[in-house]
Amino acid sequence: MVAEQVDVVVVGAGLAGLVTARQLTRGGRSVRVVEARDRVGGRTYDRVLDDGTRVELGGQWIGPTQDRIAALAAELGLPTFPTYNQGENLLDLAGRQKRYKGAIPMINPVVMADVGQAQARIERLARRVPLDAPWDDPRADVLDSQTVETWIRRNVASRPARDLLRLGVQAVFAAEARDISLLHFLFYVHAGTSFDSLLSTARGAQEQRFLDGPQEVSVRMAAELGDAVWLEAPVRSIRQDDHGVAVTTDRGEVLGAYAVVAVPPTLAGRISYDPLLPAARDQLTQRMPMGSVIKVHVRYDEPFWRGDGLTGQATSDRGAVRVTFDNSPSDGSSGTLLAFIEGAEARHWSAQDPADRHRVVIADLVRYFGRRAGNYAEIVEQDWSTEEWTRGCYGAHLAPGVWTAYGPALRTPCGRIHWAGTETASVWTGYLDGAVRSGERAASDLTALLGATSAPGSAP
Amino acid sequence: MVAEQVDVVVVGAGLAGLVTARQLTRGGRSVRVVEARDRVGGRTYDRVLDDGTRVELGGQWIGPTQDRIAALAAELGLPTFPTYNQGENLLDLAGRQKRYKGAIPMINPVVMADVGQAQARIERLARRVPLDAPWDDPRADVLDSQTVETWIRRNVASRPARDLLRLGVQAVFAAEARDISLLHFLFYVHAGTSFDSLLSTARGAQEQRFLDGPQEVSVRMAAELGDAVWLEAPVRSIRQDDHGVAVTTDRGEVLGAYAVVAVPPTLAGRISYDPLLPAARDQLTQRMPMGSVIKVHVRYDEPFWRGDGLTGQATSDRGAVRVTFDNSPSDGSSGTLLAFIEGAEARHWSAQDPADRHRVVIADLVRYFGRRAGNYAEIVEQDWSTEEWTRGCYGAHLAPGVWTAYGPALRTPCGRIHWAGTETASVWTGYLDGAVRSGERAASDLTALLGATSAPGSAP
Repeated sequence: MVAEQVDVVVVGAGLAGLVTARQLTRGGRSVRVVEARDRVGGRTYDRVLDDGTRVELGGQWIGPTQDRIAALAAELGLPTFPTYNQGENLLDLAGRQKRYKGAIPMINPVVMADVGQAQARIERLARRVPLDAPWDDPRADVLDSQTVETWIRRNVASRPARDLLRLGVQAVFAAEARDISLLHFLFYVHAGTSFDSLLSTARGAQEQRFLDGPQEVSVRMAAELGDAVWLEAPVRSIRQDDHGVAVTTDRGEVLGAYAVVAVPPTLAGRISYDPLLPAARDQLTQRMPMGSVIKVHVRYDEPFWRGDGLTGQATSDRGAVRVTFDNSPSDGSSGTLLAFIEGAEARHWSAQDPADRHRVVIADLVRYFGRRAGNYAEIVEQDWSTEEWTRGCYGAHLAPGVWTAYGPALRTPCGRIHWAGTETASVWTGYLDGAVRSGERAASDLTALLGATSAPGSAP
Repeated sequence: MVAEQVDVVVVGAGLAGLVTARQLTRGGRSVRVVEARDRVGGRTYDRVLDDGTRVELGGQWIGPTQDRIAALAAELGLPTFPTYNQGENLLDLAGRQKRYKGAIPMINPVVMADVGQAQARIERLARRVPLDAPWDDPRADVLDSQTVETWIRRNVASRPARDLLRLGVQAVFAAEARDISLLHFLFYVHAGTSFDSLLSTARGAQEQRFLDGPQEVSVRMAAELGDAVWLEAPVRSIRQDDHGVAVTTDRGEVLGAYAVVAVPPTLAGRISYDPLLPAARDQLTQRMPMGSVIKVHVRYDEPFWRGDGLTGQATSDRGAVRVTFDNSPSDGSSGTLLAFIEGAEARHWSAQDPADRHRVVIADLVRYFGRRAGNYAEIVEQDWSTEEWTRGCYGAHLAPGVWTAYGPALRTPCGRIHWAGTETASVWTGYLDGAVRSGERAASDLTALLGATSAPGSAP
């Protein structure tokens, strides 16, 4: 195993790392991407079902104002298509099931008024959170001292309205309202435009899907980078001195002028650093846990719910599966329901027997879509909390006190080590678009640094 | 590097790990203790100052009902002596400085009534939290949905009273009231008898010190264990199968029937496990961050504050140093003030220039104890957040949502891997006594398992 010298060693071949590497390569810099898995794409991961259709086991959607992932996909020639959204949605709340059209369920007007005023207040508070420095919000001290659950209990009167808001939080974070700092919630909402946008299909974060699957974005970038990408090369340690970095992987050591670590913060914190990282950075990564989600795809011979005038989108305050989508192929040649098990339900069901888990998933789908939902052809699960190189999805969340105490450590480079990954984005953080933006930022920062220190190839 | 076979491999030579190893050894079992540092004692660590007196840079006190550390110290022949507590304490609150005797400062009676009712409610709520399963508290859902800060703001009217309670939380956890779940706070209080007990010197958790220093407890146990303790052997990975465990350290691999991991949870989470640990365990260790504390010892030729009728114990709502103690040698032959920088102040000051940090420490001591505090002979700091093999002190705390979602994963063994360390104790968790208790529990559990499976020495 011979050490080598590149301009930048990129840790992680997810979207963020590959965007970093691609942009640097295009600027004439040499890179080496080291990836722990035997595949690229990180939290995007597609799989072909028995009938040949492709489903998205990880991050999958793209929506309005997600301009950087859109531009990248367009450049790579990867088209998108609308998430199936025709007909009525289902709401199963407080023991009653309703069908409704559009984003707002027509339930009890008192409840809807309660939800409406809460959402309006959320949007108003969120707009003021500075995206580059949430800790600079004038009310940061108050907002970062409480959980979202505390805010809900104090500001929302009716129980169904509270449950609807909790569901919204679970759907966005794959965590519970009690796990999350109100300041972090508001920052995240602002970074994704609005709470309404995060929750919406039409004109929202779930608007479009990738025809060839979202992982293909990474696959294409990796193909461009060729031999520069090492798979099955988990990083164990990173040394640095005044001259460069040495990244030790299971496939050998890579030397570079700089490193970009583009993995979830909790995994970045498990790498051994020499010299040690500053206390603020280490204590930050002790405080950025990943959410909990199991994505379950259930395939049917046809998308039968469409014939019933249903979008396939259900929301419920009970059951293991509380959010569903129609994840059928674009031509509707077969039918696939995407059932999300999120937050507390995911933590519980992760440890259960698969057969039991399948049973409750199907029971929930039958409750939403009728008896035909019981007659499925295939079921495929992806439990992100059991993935060694992710350890939870969709992303990291921050408990109270973390932004105000440790915020600046999220992006501040530690010597020659820079940080990327969707958690480090200030726009669309937690989304594919945030991952792309974080990679672009890291590449720009390093281009400036490399330009200032040495010409390409002139290693110190 | 030849692999070997022992009954139990113990990871970590702090109090918990050494107690585990000692008890197993006395029961006729073979052990190997692997320790990352070049010393034993973990979060207990003593140092001899220039004048030959010893100071405690880590955990240091022992108090009533801490029976297991007391028994161990007695058995090892290590005497204790009372923390200096004669005279009056200082309280610097809301811009005014008061002297008072005993545990309760005589300030504004309205404020004292406010603090008193809050503390009474805390004690009442805490007594109900089940020590072995805080998540079983009938009100766990409500208590684990909010921060301590939320509770203080809702239940304490006056600002000085709120500040006093926040100070109490900082002093106990080296973290802020906003960082901590109310349920965790109440559990911790119950585990240490009462909030009053945690905060008190006389008849409280700060009552006694070790004449030879607390680290000596570990040094004596390690001496008994002899060659069974490997220093400078950080553990990188643990494999297990039906027959045993293989623990890989920088000094080689150790094979055993079982392993006990007796390091802080956040460090246990950085070890690589094969097979992977269950999601619940990994996600738990993503959610148990360490507190932030810098212990500063300032030595003087004599304990001059004693002549002024002061105990050396000051409490303040401002400054870098908000809690102090007299940490002079038992014979008072010289004077040492112990200045705590805790929580948010520690996070800030950890990153500053040492000279600047020393300046603010001394300025705070002068504010409390007068001009003579500026005339010091020696200053020694210990910043636990910069220690690679601790990464913060005093211990781990839990944010809202963690106990209720992940509680059982704290002590449940993962196959042949068991867990010890003060964070796993249900009595005096976070204290020396909790560490001893956790080691005793782990040793008992393993003795039962080993007895049931094979006689000592009869390796599979």
